[in-house]
Amino acid sequence: MVEELDDNPLGELLRALDASDCSALLAAAEDVHYADLAHLYENLDDEKRDLLLKTIGPELATDLVAELPYPLIEEALDHFKPAQLRVLLGNLSDDDRVDVFQVVSEEAQVRFFSLLGPRDKELTRNLLKYEEDTAGGRMTTQVGRITADMTVKQAITVLRRDREDAETLARIFVVDEQGRLVGKVRLRDLAFSTWDTPIFDIMEPADETILASADQEEAARTLSKYDLIVLPVVDEFHHLLGVLTYDDALEILQEESTEDIEKLSGIGGEQSEVSYLNTSVLAQYRRRVSWLVGLAFLSIVSGYVMFRFSEVLEKAFVLALFLPMVVAAGGNSGGQAATMVIRAMALGEIKTGNALKIAWKEARTGLSLGLTLGATMAAFVSFLLPHIQQKTGADFSFPSLALAVSLALIVQVLSATVMGALLPIAARAIRLDPAVVSAPSLASTVDISGMLIYFAVVGAVLNLH
Amino acid sequence: MVEELDDNPLGELLRALDASDCSALLAAAEDVHYADLAHLYENLDDEKRDLLLKTIGPELATDLVAELPYPLIEEALDHFKPAQLRVLLGNLSDDDRVDVFQVVSEEAQVRFFSLLGPRDKELTRNLLKYEEDTAGGRMTTQVGRITADMTVKQAITVLRRDREDAETLARIFVVDEQGRLVGKVRLRDLAFSTWDTPIFDIMEPADETILASADQEEAARTLSKYDLIVLPVVDEFHHLLGVLTYDDALEILQEESTEDIEKLSGIGGEQSEVSYLNTSVLAQYRRRVSWLVGLAFLSIVSGYVMFRFSEVLEKAFVLALFLPMVVAAGGNSGGQAATMVIRAMALGEIKTGNALKIAWKEARTGLSLGLTLGATMAAFVSFLLPHIQQKTGADFSFPSLALAVSLALIVQVLSATVMGALLPIAARAIRLDPAVVSAPSLASTVDISGMLIYFAVVGAVLNLH
Repeated sequence: MVEELDDNPLGELLRALDASDCSALLAAAEDVHYADLAHLYENLDDEKRDLLLKTIGPELATDLVAELPYPLIEEALDHFKPAQLRVLLGNLSDDDRVDVFQVVSEEAQVRFFSLLGPRDKELTRNLLKYEEDTAGGRMTTQVGRITADMTVKQAITVLRRDREDAETLARIFVVDEQGRLVGKVRLRDLAFSTWDTPIFDIMEPADETILASADQEEAARTLSKYDLIVLPVVDEFHHLLGVLTYDDALEILQEESTEDIEKLSGIGGEQSEVSYLNTSVLAQYRRRVSWLVGLAFLSIVSGYVMFRFSEVLEKAFVLALFLPMVVAAGGNSGGQAATMVIRAMALGEIKTGNALKIAWKEARTGLSLGLTLGATMAAFVSFLLPHIQQKTGADFSFPSLALAVSLALIVQVLSATVMGALLPIAARAIRLDPAVVSAPSLASTVDISGMLIYFAVVGAVLNLH
Repeated sequence: MVEELDDNPLGELLRALDASDCSALLAAAEDVHYADLAHLYENLDDEKRDLLLKTIGPELATDLVAELPYPLIEEALDHFKPAQLRVLLGNLSDDDRVDVFQVVSEEAQVRFFSLLGPRDKELTRNLLKYEEDTAGGRMTTQVGRITADMTVKQAITVLRRDREDAETLARIFVVDEQGRLVGKVRLRDLAFSTWDTPIFDIMEPADETILASADQEEAARTLSKYDLIVLPVVDEFHHLLGVLTYDDALEILQEESTEDIEKLSGIGGEQSEVSYLNTSVLAQYRRRVSWLVGLAFLSIVSGYVMFRFSEVLEKAFVLALFLPMVVAAGGNSGGQAATMVIRAMALGEIKTGNALKIAWKEARTGLSLGLTLGATMAAFVSFLLPHIQQKTGADFSFPSLALAVSLALIVQVLSATVMGALLPIAARAIRLDPAVVSAPSLASTVDISGMLIYFAVVGAVLNLH
């Protein structure tokens, strides 16, 4: 439905762009949602980006720029003359403006800052004090504020001034003379109460708040957990500094999920803000190369173990048949355990203190999985393999081979599962992001132990050393 | 801050539970947010769950029950007598009530349905027509509706009746006589306009809508993309059926992210609604075992390749040193590529039609990564290895070994990267979830090709066949 309804203005806009028809372009752009406009802009070449921005002018471009992936913002702003930039920067909501200052070059920061009005200068300076990924760094100060001694009529008069500026009026916050948060009022209660009702009578406690210094993810989870539209951001004295809104929370949680998913696959650093198709090959390369090289050296250790135990393999090459399986089973089961634990930590379900409880749970799960795998493979080696393979090529029977392989599997799966569960917790305990224990790094580590376990167990059971 | 503020009532509640002090328990429960209450409930034993629910009664328990993970809902409801259940089910918002009916047993469905009032019966029957994971299945019908010919005063009178029932009044929807959506009004515009203003003058178009039959994830992404608080859900004739709210979107997107993360690690089926520590070992085992066994058999194919090429290894066991590395480099680089593509598809950035563009991009990225890895390893083999290892144990030199290993690496990384990028797209094209191309299944597949590539390339370059 959305797609269909949007098709027309978007199509018109593209045609106007191709024809460089400025008046048609302006008319079409006014009908397109800024989110669609930003998405379209991303996929244009430089010339068309310039035409689009210059045609729609700073007023219409404000929302578009605020919606762009961070790396494209500075370049977009450079299409405007200083007088236009002054308008655009003034139009931005204060949290979007701070985002802009946080992502542009230092030279641009100074240049843009000089274009701000005195009030915006102070606001921006204040907001820039907070780290980018804290509640304070993401909040907006544009929030409806009233005091408890007002009547509904007085409150409406005060709020009417903010009518278009406030990010949301779904919740209006009540502060005391010192600006400390004392409660909140729903706009519906204002709208549906008689004008002489004191605010004090209709306000509710604002129990859920977040410190400006708190991590943005904690803020987003709090908002999400308590189903809030706005979460008030306060300082340690409970002064109301601003609010975080539901759409900020959506954005933060999406960013964090993407970051976790990428780290789990060993893709380094911060998640890219730019969409996949707009990321250059060089950027893709940079984000992935260091992990790959590091993991390659780790894998040489696996190779070294295999090399050292070459005489075991030489005595019975049939053992090669099960080596990759035992090794991979550890990587897979360890990876599953790590994912469960990392996701549970991300969702705030488990903490470092639970480590023993988790290890015990994973030990039991790992043992069950190992026993199942071991039994399956023992059955395979005892019953199916003799039909495929006439002899083992060594002086041991299929049943003793089955025993050796399944024992190695059980030890490998059990140890890998417990390692997979505990490594993210250990990482968190030493204040690393648990997601650094990515599936590939875990798999490479478990590969080494798998090689050792396989040769040790198989060598001992089959008496090959 | 939140934690500190909540500590007291939660602590009191736990103490009252331990002491079975009903009046203290009730008093404490009234001060605790239902989200915290539900979280606490999850971690109680049966006896305490019963005490808690019976003490707080159906009124207070309504929000708690709606917040519980699905598998716990039926059991929770069974603590109440039919008369209490009637109250609780009547108090639920219509979307939560439908969720309850969707997750309880058939027997309970019939029993609970008989307790509903006639209006709730019809509402529930209507909502149950939609699939659980569609916009219709997640929407609420409790939405503010007015018509364009009303004045602000008339609208406020109508809406005042819904004041407490409507899930949100941040947006009020304007419908025609047939119930078709024609526009929306912000509550702030109602509150701040004079009472004789016609609704027609202050209403805006409601461009963003979603079909009731659309996938819930599409609905959540639309809401998120356009920064909406509420997204109207319509049928094909544009009748307003209900709305999806920002908190539904948050929940849906979190569920989908968890599901993707778990599938990527080869954890089967739907994501568990129950938190990690409350999932039994048996449930954990069930969710993971089938992947592990399947992957184990896939790994035997790798083993078979190694077994078949045993004479190459026998000629120069130094080759074992690099075998795991070449194999693992494919799994790692393929996994990275798959993750980038799967996440980009989940975020709606790329579609099946882009397959060629993506393959070309990944081929270039894969080639760059392969060249880097190859060069690094060639340097390692040529310069470092001779110092560690006196001789290769075969009749080839270190430089030719370096050439062979790095060639094998380049081919393996390049092919794995392209496979990793294209497999999720192929899965989507045949209407499978792209995330079934999990890192472990991809790694096991790429392991096989890695073994083949290694023995083929190394055997050919070093002339070992």
